[in-house]
Amino acid sequence: MTRTELSTLGEFGLIERINQQFTPVLPQTIKGIGDDAAVIDTGSDEYTLVSTDMLIEGVHFDLSYAPLKHLGFKAVAVNVSDIAAMNGTPRQITVSIGLSNRFSVEAIDELYAGIQTACEAYKVDLVGGDTSASRSGLVLSVTAIGTVKKDKIAYRNGAQPNDVICVTGDLGAAYLGLQLLEREKREFLENPNMQPQLEDKAYLIGRQLKPEARTNIIYELNDADLVPTSMIDVSDGLASEILHLCKQSGTGAQIFEEHIPVADETFLTADEFKLSPLTSALNGGEDYELLFTIKQTDYEKIKNSPHISFIGFMTNDPSAVEIVTKGGGRFPVQAQGWQHLTR
Amino acid sequence: MTRTELSTLGEFGLIERINQQFTPVLPQTIKGIGDDAAVIDTGSDEYTLVSTDMLIEGVHFDLSYAPLKHLGFKAVAVNVSDIAAMNGTPRQITVSIGLSNRFSVEAIDELYAGIQTACEAYKVDLVGGDTSASRSGLVLSVTAIGTVKKDKIAYRNGAQPNDVICVTGDLGAAYLGLQLLEREKREFLENPNMQPQLEDKAYLIGRQLKPEARTNIIYELNDADLVPTSMIDVSDGLASEILHLCKQSGTGAQIFEEHIPVADETFLTADEFKLSPLTSALNGGEDYELLFTIKQTDYEKIKNSPHISFIGFMTNDPSAVEIVTKGGGRFPVQAQGWQHLTR
Repeated sequence: MTRTELSTLGEFGLIERINQQFTPVLPQTIKGIGDDAAVIDTGSDEYTLVSTDMLIEGVHFDLSYAPLKHLGFKAVAVNVSDIAAMNGTPRQITVSIGLSNRFSVEAIDELYAGIQTACEAYKVDLVGGDTSASRSGLVLSVTAIGTVKKDKIAYRNGAQPNDVICVTGDLGAAYLGLQLLEREKREFLENPNMQPQLEDKAYLIGRQLKPEARTNIIYELNDADLVPTSMIDVSDGLASEILHLCKQSGTGAQIFEEHIPVADETFLTADEFKLSPLTSALNGGEDYELLFTIKQTDYEKIKNSPHISFIGFMTNDPSAVEIVTKGGGRFPVQAQGWQHLTR
Repeated sequence: MTRTELSTLGEFGLIERINQQFTPVLPQTIKGIGDDAAVIDTGSDEYTLVSTDMLIEGVHFDLSYAPLKHLGFKAVAVNVSDIAAMNGTPRQITVSIGLSNRFSVEAIDELYAGIQTACEAYKVDLVGGDTSASRSGLVLSVTAIGTVKKDKIAYRNGAQPNDVICVTGDLGAAYLGLQLLEREKREFLENPNMQPQLEDKAYLIGRQLKPEARTNIIYELNDADLVPTSMIDVSDGLASEILHLCKQSGTGAQIFEEHIPVADETFLTADEFKLSPLTSALNGGEDYELLFTIKQTDYEKIKNSPHISFIGFMTNDPSAVEIVTKGGGRFPVQAQGWQHLTR
């Protein structure tokens, strides 16, 4: 029998392969695999949204520096972020955990305290889950359920040429937070008496360990009476996400480096690590900001928002998704994406 | 800081502890933790049901004898079973997997072929999921979404004294299937040239490796215009499940050994292993049959069903959940349940 290595496919290849096998057949299934959340018609005036994520110890988090309470919060926030990326409101979550005897009851209490804090912050109910033994590390699987008025839903595939590309908050900080934590860990392993030097780095580390889902933006857009033409959350980095929007919408894009929001702390720390802040923003990932497009005629409605940056335009050439650098150079945007299986 | 071992709580203790922390607050959340599925009101005339299960290699399955295709089928079936246990119809599933490089693309194709077979068998759409690397074994997390007319829903807590206790199919077979597979594995490890001797055991092994969810019963009950007063699926064994129904309904129960359905193959193989068929039925688990109660006045509607056995009655003394043996003895029903964390 032939054996094909998973690494030849990569994550996106694997998802594509699975996706091709499964075409929804029920009239209630409006959207299956391929957006931030599945979309279900339950017969009311709102769609039900479903999104799920699995976090595995040693792959998605390292308990030597991720406090369990923050991990619990993050596991909820990243799923809530997927609901927000459909222009939806999160309502319920389920949380399944696989854990070994090395965790004490007190440790599990910490994890659930973080989950509870997130439930309160995002006004969601924890309604179910599963608890199981795990032979090795901690496994967390969260499913979020949300709702959105049928005429307010934002898919990845609705962008049109000339739409304005918008992004919330700032990008690249979570990635540099991770670099800082990894560096501290290495230094601690070399010299356990070392004191951590992270006083000035609270912002970056907070962005990595305890990201917030941008549900506030959904309220802000709703108040402005604006429905994005397309939307996605920034989990794998701006490059990967803009390519998703363009591919699914059949558009190209031009993004301007000078308009990409990067925090001062990110600039300074990128310099320390001899990393490009632009690369951190494009390929760092885990920012959990929202990337969306709007009609030019809607620009007036949100142009003064302190939470939103306008970074470029959709174009009509699907073969050209480009970044225009501060120096005026033009380069194709390339996705690094998720490479766990090929590492 | 105090350290309390998880083993002091056990699974049910841990779930109880989590449950106490999380009280649903949204009006849309009709039922949170504590039944086979969460119940959500989306504003239509049907409730939306959500159930989730996590399967971890080395804990819930052993790939040395569980074919990946069957595993994929089973992962879906056990979640569909939870939807059926609310008297509901499954509609969609999400499947998240954590996997390592030791799995080939062909192996993953086998797994998804089983998932697809189950999707077709139970008429559900796969609508989402997550793929991730795992540092150790295979992890599968499935969430099922279903619907039920509001006036047809069956909770665990609706049984009344004198209700008739019903169970579908037969019990104990999946447990003996597991014993057979474990024995074959031991013998194979001792003598790799050994030929498996499982010709007569197809039924028991099939019940373990590829259980079916009893969605057919939901149609049958609906056709009979019968709504169970309470219902649960038999995942941990009859003993554990009847105790759940009694505890949540505030009733006692009398179950008659002579009426508990046990297949001939189960009797014969139990004898081979010097196990009691009754113990296998009470504490074996993984049968995924439905245990439910009906009003006595509804008995006529299903008394001739070939799929349903009538095994006892609910009583009004919550302190007495008893089994009446063929010899006429009475014993309290005791749950063994899930002990992964204490092993």
